[in-house]
Amino acid sequence: MTDPRLTPLAASLPDTVPFVGPETQQRRMGRDFTARLGANESVFGPSPRAVEAMQAAAQKVWMYGDPEAHELREAIAAHHGVAPEHIRVGEGIDGLLGLLVRLTITQGDWVVTSEGGYPTFDYHVTGFGGRIEHVPYAGDRVDTEGLIDRAGWAGAKLAYISNPDNPMGGLHDAATIRAMIEALPAGALLVLDEAYVEFVPEAQLLPIDAEDDRVIRLRSFSKAHGLAGARVGYAIGPAPLIAAFDRVRNHFGLGRIPQAGARAALADRDHLDHVVSQVAAARARIAAIAHDNGLAPLPSSTNFVAIDCGGDGALARRVMTGLAARGVFVRMPGVAPLDRCIRVTAGHEADLDIFAAALPEALEEARAAP
Amino acid sequence: MTDPRLTPLAASLPDTVPFVGPETQQRRMGRDFTARLGANESVFGPSPRAVEAMQAAAQKVWMYGDPEAHELREAIAAHHGVAPEHIRVGEGIDGLLGLLVRLTITQGDWVVTSEGGYPTFDYHVTGFGGRIEHVPYAGDRVDTEGLIDRAGWAGAKLAYISNPDNPMGGLHDAATIRAMIEALPAGALLVLDEAYVEFVPEAQLLPIDAEDDRVIRLRSFSKAHGLAGARVGYAIGPAPLIAAFDRVRNHFGLGRIPQAGARAALADRDHLDHVVSQVAAARARIAAIAHDNGLAPLPSSTNFVAIDCGGDGALARRVMTGLAARGVFVRMPGVAPLDRCIRVTAGHEADLDIFAAALPEALEEARAAP
Repeated sequence: MTDPRLTPLAASLPDTVPFVGPETQQRRMGRDFTARLGANESVFGPSPRAVEAMQAAAQKVWMYGDPEAHELREAIAAHHGVAPEHIRVGEGIDGLLGLLVRLTITQGDWVVTSEGGYPTFDYHVTGFGGRIEHVPYAGDRVDTEGLIDRAGWAGAKLAYISNPDNPMGGLHDAATIRAMIEALPAGALLVLDEAYVEFVPEAQLLPIDAEDDRVIRLRSFSKAHGLAGARVGYAIGPAPLIAAFDRVRNHFGLGRIPQAGARAALADRDHLDHVVSQVAAARARIAAIAHDNGLAPLPSSTNFVAIDCGGDGALARRVMTGLAARGVFVRMPGVAPLDRCIRVTAGHEADLDIFAAALPEALEEARAAP
Repeated sequence: MTDPRLTPLAASLPDTVPFVGPETQQRRMGRDFTARLGANESVFGPSPRAVEAMQAAAQKVWMYGDPEAHELREAIAAHHGVAPEHIRVGEGIDGLLGLLVRLTITQGDWVVTSEGGYPTFDYHVTGFGGRIEHVPYAGDRVDTEGLIDRAGWAGAKLAYISNPDNPMGGLHDAATIRAMIEALPAGALLVLDEAYVEFVPEAQLLPIDAEDDRVIRLRSFSKAHGLAGARVGYAIGPAPLIAAFDRVRNHFGLGRIPQAGARAALADRDHLDHVVSQVAAARARIAAIAHDNGLAPLPSSTNFVAIDCGGDGALARRVMTGLAARGVFVRMPGVAPLDRCIRVTAGHEADLDIFAAALPEALEEARAAP
C-alpha cells in the first residue's frame, strides 16, 4: 500500500534498499556471525585515541555538535593542504553522495557509472529521478574510457568511479584518473569515490587539486580509520559546489561524538600505518586461502579481496550462503560477470581461521548443489 | 559564484541556513559563552546509563550501526504500545522532516505553518521547491483554526505545528489538536512536532493513534533525554508513509553510538522524571528573574521560557546581543510580534545566576541605545 500523499517521484521509487545489514541477516538466521567479513569494516578498529575522544564527547552530548564541524573541517583541510572552503564533512560518503545528487540531478538528468558499481550511488540517482547509464567493467576494472565516452554520449552531469574499486578491489593509476578528468565532457563532474584510498601508497594517487572544478573526491573515516559506526565522510571539491551543500544538508546531522572521533583518528598516523600493514597481511592470507582452494583472488588495493569462485553468479551465491551458514559474513557483487566472485574483508587471524575452515565446505556444498 | 551544474532548484535556493550554532558565535566573539541557554539543550544531561552505553558502543564503532535500528525501533514501539511498522528512527527531527518533505512535496506544492514557527521546516520545504503559506500566531500561540483554514484554502499537503510550541513555549490541549486533525482537509497530513512533549504530563496529550493516517508525530532524544549531540529522533505515523522513508533515507546514517544511547535513555524513566522536575524549577526561576526585571515571562510547557522584553524586535535583539557580550547565549524568535521576546533555556542554578546578573545590564544598555 502506498501513501496517497507521496509525490509522483516518491511513489514511483522501488522498495529495495542498497544494502541489507548483517544484523538483519543475523535476526533471520537466529544467531550471530562468528566472522564479520562482509561490510569492509576495519576489524583492526579505530585509533584508541579516537575511542577516548568519543567517550569524552559522550559526557558532553547534551550539547549539539557544531553544525559547521569547524574544527574537523579545518583539520581535514590542513591535512590535505587545501583551504577549508574546499572541504565538506557529512554523514558518511553515502550521505554526501545523496546531497551531491540532490544538488545536481533533477528528473531526467543522466549520470554514468559502472554496471555492478556502488549501489548507493544508483539509489540516490534513482531517488532524485535521474537516469543511469551503466558501463560494463572491462577485465574486472572500471572501464574508464567507456565511462567518459558514455558520459559524452548521454550528456551526463555526473560520472561516478570508485578508486580503489569497490566491489572488485583494483586500482587505476594517477595517469588514468587524470586522463578521465581531461576527457570529461564540458559541464560534467567526476565523482571520485576514494573510500579505500588510505590503503594506497600516496605516490600512486593523483595529487589533490582542489581548484579543479571538474572533480569532487569523497573520502571516509569508515574504512582505514575504523569509524564505520560513527559515520563520517568528507568531500574535497570546488568551493562553489562545496558551499552549495549548506543549502540542502541536515546542519546538525553530524553529532558531537563522530566529530570528536574523526579529529582524533585523523591525527593518529601511527595507528593508520599499523592498520594498513595489518590489512596488507590479511589480504595476503585471504589470497593464500583462495589459492589453497584452487580459487583465484583478484588484486586488491583495498581492505577486501574479491575471490573468483570459478563459476557463475549462482555458484558464488551458494558459496556465500554456505559461508553464512558456517558463521562467516561475506558479500558478493550484484551483476555478471563480477558476481562469479565473493568479497572477503580483511580480518584478524582468528576471523580468517574461521573463513579458512568454512570455505572448503561451502565450496564443496555449492558445487554439489543441483 | 554558483556552480553551473546545480539543478535550477538548487541554484535558486538561498544561502541562509536555519540556525547559526553557538560555536560559530563563539569563534566570532573570540571567547566561549559561560551560560549556554540558547539551543534548548538539556544542561541536566542524559541518563548516566545512556553515557555508559555510548561509551561501550564507542569500543565497537568499527562496525556500522544496524541500518534498520531494529532494537531501538522495537523499544520505541513497545514504549508507545504501537507496532514497529509505525515507527521510523532518524537523524533528529530535522533529518526526519527533510525526508518527510522530500517524500511529499514537489515543486509548487503548498504547505502551511506558522509565521515565526520552526525555521528548519521552512528550510526543507523551500529546499524541495514547495510553497509556504504562513499563518500569524494568535496571542502568542499557534492559530490552529487559521492553520487548518489556510490548509484548505491552499490545498496544502502538509500542515506543521509544534506542540508544545517552539519558540513561544505554549501548549494546545488534546481537544484542540484533535479538532485540528478532524478538520484537516482531505489529502493533507498534520505534521505534529512534539520535540518537547516529555515536559508535558501524559494526561494533557492527545493519545497516540498510530492507525490515524492524517497525522505524523515527531519526537526527539535531543531535549528531555539530553542527547542533542547524538542526534536521534523518531516519527510515529501511518505504516505506508513510515515504510516510504526507506526509499529515500541514508540507511547507515544513524550510527552505532546514538542508537545505543537512545535505547538506554528511553529505558531510564527515573532520570527523565528527574530532568522534568529540574526543568520545572528552572522555568520558575527564569520567570522570577524576568519579573524581577519588570518583564513578562510567557507560560511554558517546554524546557525554555520566552520573555517579553517589553518593546519591539530591535530592543529584544539588543538585549540578546548584550547578554551574549556578557557570556550568556540565548536566542529569539525571528518575526514580529514574537520577536519582542528572548528565549531562555532551562539551566543549572549557576547558569541562571549568570543570566540573572547579566539581564539587568543588558536591558539597561538595550533601552539606552539610540
